[in-house]
Amino acid sequence: MSDLFPPAEYHRRHSAIQARLQAAGLNAILLTQAADIFYVTGFLTRFWESPARPWFVVIPATGNPIAVIPEIGAYLMGKSVLTDIRTWPAPHPEDDGVSLLAEALCDTVPVNGKIGVAMGLETQLRMPLGDFFALQTRLAPRAFVDATDVMHRTREVKSALELEKLRQICTIADRAFARMGEIARVGTNLDMVFRAFQILLLEEGADWVSYVAGGAGQGGYGDVISPAAPIPLRNGDILMLDTGAVKDGYFCDFDRNFAIGTPSPEAARGHQILQDAIYAVMEVIRPNIRALDVHAMLCREITARGGAPCAGRLGHGLGVTLTEWPSLTLHDQTVLPAGMVLTLEPSVDLGQGRILVAEENIVITEHGAEFLTNPAPRDIPVI
Amino acid sequence: MSDLFPPAEYHRRHSAIQARLQAAGLNAILLTQAADIFYVTGFLTRFWESPARPWFVVIPATGNPIAVIPEIGAYLMGKSVLTDIRTWPAPHPEDDGVSLLAEALCDTVPVNGKIGVAMGLETQLRMPLGDFFALQTRLAPRAFVDATDVMHRTREVKSALELEKLRQICTIADRAFARMGEIARVGTNLDMVFRAFQILLLEEGADWVSYVAGGAGQGGYGDVISPAAPIPLRNGDILMLDTGAVKDGYFCDFDRNFAIGTPSPEAARGHQILQDAIYAVMEVIRPNIRALDVHAMLCREITARGGAPCAGRLGHGLGVTLTEWPSLTLHDQTVLPAGMVLTLEPSVDLGQGRILVAEENIVITEHGAEFLTNPAPRDIPVI
Repeated sequence: MSDLFPPAEYHRRHSAIQARLQAAGLNAILLTQAADIFYVTGFLTRFWESPARPWFVVIPATGNPIAVIPEIGAYLMGKSVLTDIRTWPAPHPEDDGVSLLAEALCDTVPVNGKIGVAMGLETQLRMPLGDFFALQTRLAPRAFVDATDVMHRTREVKSALELEKLRQICTIADRAFARMGEIARVGTNLDMVFRAFQILLLEEGADWVSYVAGGAGQGGYGDVISPAAPIPLRNGDILMLDTGAVKDGYFCDFDRNFAIGTPSPEAARGHQILQDAIYAVMEVIRPNIRALDVHAMLCREITARGGAPCAGRLGHGLGVTLTEWPSLTLHDQTVLPAGMVLTLEPSVDLGQGRILVAEENIVITEHGAEFLTNPAPRDIPVI
Repeated sequence: MSDLFPPAEYHRRHSAIQARLQAAGLNAILLTQAADIFYVTGFLTRFWESPARPWFVVIPATGNPIAVIPEIGAYLMGKSVLTDIRTWPAPHPEDDGVSLLAEALCDTVPVNGKIGVAMGLETQLRMPLGDFFALQTRLAPRAFVDATDVMHRTREVKSALELEKLRQICTIADRAFARMGEIARVGTNLDMVFRAFQILLLEEGADWVSYVAGGAGQGGYGDVISPAAPIPLRNGDILMLDTGAVKDGYFCDFDRNFAIGTPSPEAARGHQILQDAIYAVMEVIRPNIRALDVHAMLCREITARGGAPCAGRLGHGLGVTLTEWPSLTLHDQTVLPAGMVLTLEPSVDLGQGRILVAEENIVITEHGAEFLTNPAPRDIPVI
């Protein structure tokens, strides 16, 4: 909370959002998602895991933000820079904050005004849909309009303080990956590796581990989102682990590959191709290119080295959620400003249902890009 | 997946949902939330942590369910009982599954039909709001109507197979709590206790730890949703840890209190009052009473013993999310059927901003209730 960032960081964020609201002709923005509310207040709690209660912050185009929250959050929100905190005894089956929220919006938005709410790609409305419809009716003729860009354009440029947090969690995961030899060897069941890897991340300083995925298979793996099975690692397996660990609310999201025993020549070469492609892209990436340009660069660098790039997205934004916009795909035209943090996540198809996926975390700088991770070596580490 | 439950379990769930759809005059239900989709398919992945992609399952009132999902999920969903799986290359900025979903709904819902979607308490629409509006327009005159009850009434009665999973994760957390003396002592910083407790849960067999909260303070604690600070435990502190750990997609949610050194008489007595109140309620609880009746029972039992019950909810449903409906509050009239799993979470106010919170997990049976946890002893354990 107050020890996470100084108040000036939050005031800067509020001003940036308010400038965008004014430019878009919006009178206020309604925030309902954990990441957005954390971003504007520092309100950090795992209590979001419970779907029972909605939480709201209203930022008017001018004036003070208003938190409209369940009373169980009053103490913690009281430590934020917000001074206008209104609470109700949630959950309440007849009126779960709707009246209180309507009042806060009436206080800040004129009768013919516009209220921004995120409606676009990679956003969700974290409140019951029926309550949103009730709110629309009560606030009419005020209109709710899409304001996805207001938060996306603000959040996507990370401050120096945020970069420090992101470097910290990447370093924690770097240290955990460096200890992989302690937990994975021939005969260890994959589900035990997943469990032990989470323990390493906690031991190295993660506050919690929101995401672990991976896979293992002879000369490469197939699916990378399935839960780990109690199947032992074998000589010749390639093991991949991917983590979204959290420190002070900031996420890393990168993976590492390991050869259990001697890797097949195809897997060994695939690893080199992926890392060489990443290193090559890091040399040429510049601010203000587009997401689809980086996608094209990664594919080109892989193909040039004789690899077969996988379809799908080859990276994405990163910050206060495991993944943020944009997506490095064929279609995403988002411009990448200096200060944006990204994952580069190229993969190669080795045939027979086997793939390799690499992933690094980087920040776009004024002149190029820097790794936040200690990047994987060219040659796949052998365990 | 297929090893989680036999196919018959999912077919039973589909039939129960379809019977409710037919009774409500709905032609289909659209599911967007992780828990609902897990419930009807066994699709278990931490990939939901990424807000980038929406996922959909359509269950028609008659006929086969349809999964409409990002292609990255095709392999894992292919292991479910679903036979109609349609995918798109997500995320796609122009059409992120909307056309494909509209087609699936057109296939199953006549032009003047009704599509159920959860709009009520404790639900969220996990897709961009703008895409939902686009879907409404494309499917008109088909209407989207609230179908919160369809999933709530189905999911809230746990099968024998589900109870086995819930007992398993409760037992895992029981074992971790039994080892608290290994990780908490005078001088240990609270944030390190939180970290070490997550490690214990993983060591004891949790797949992951979605929730840890707690607090520590002289003779009781204050806030219970704040992140843990690097503040050392002191003699006379009461330490509380609360966890939502996960095994095979099923959650426990209970806490334990510990005295660091000798507890104050008020804290010691408060612990007895809370546990005695829980034991007393367990003797009289019966199926088909209401949530607010259990709230009243808990308050009465605490008051009768000279305690001051805290305001707020004193328990809630539990299953495939950390909290499920109903809420044990003054206002929740939900009837509690046999097979419902609940937390009993009474708390007492010890004055001066200090509280104690107890929590157990129970199942309502045909004749009463049973603990899923190994309930806390009457006297607060001393470390």
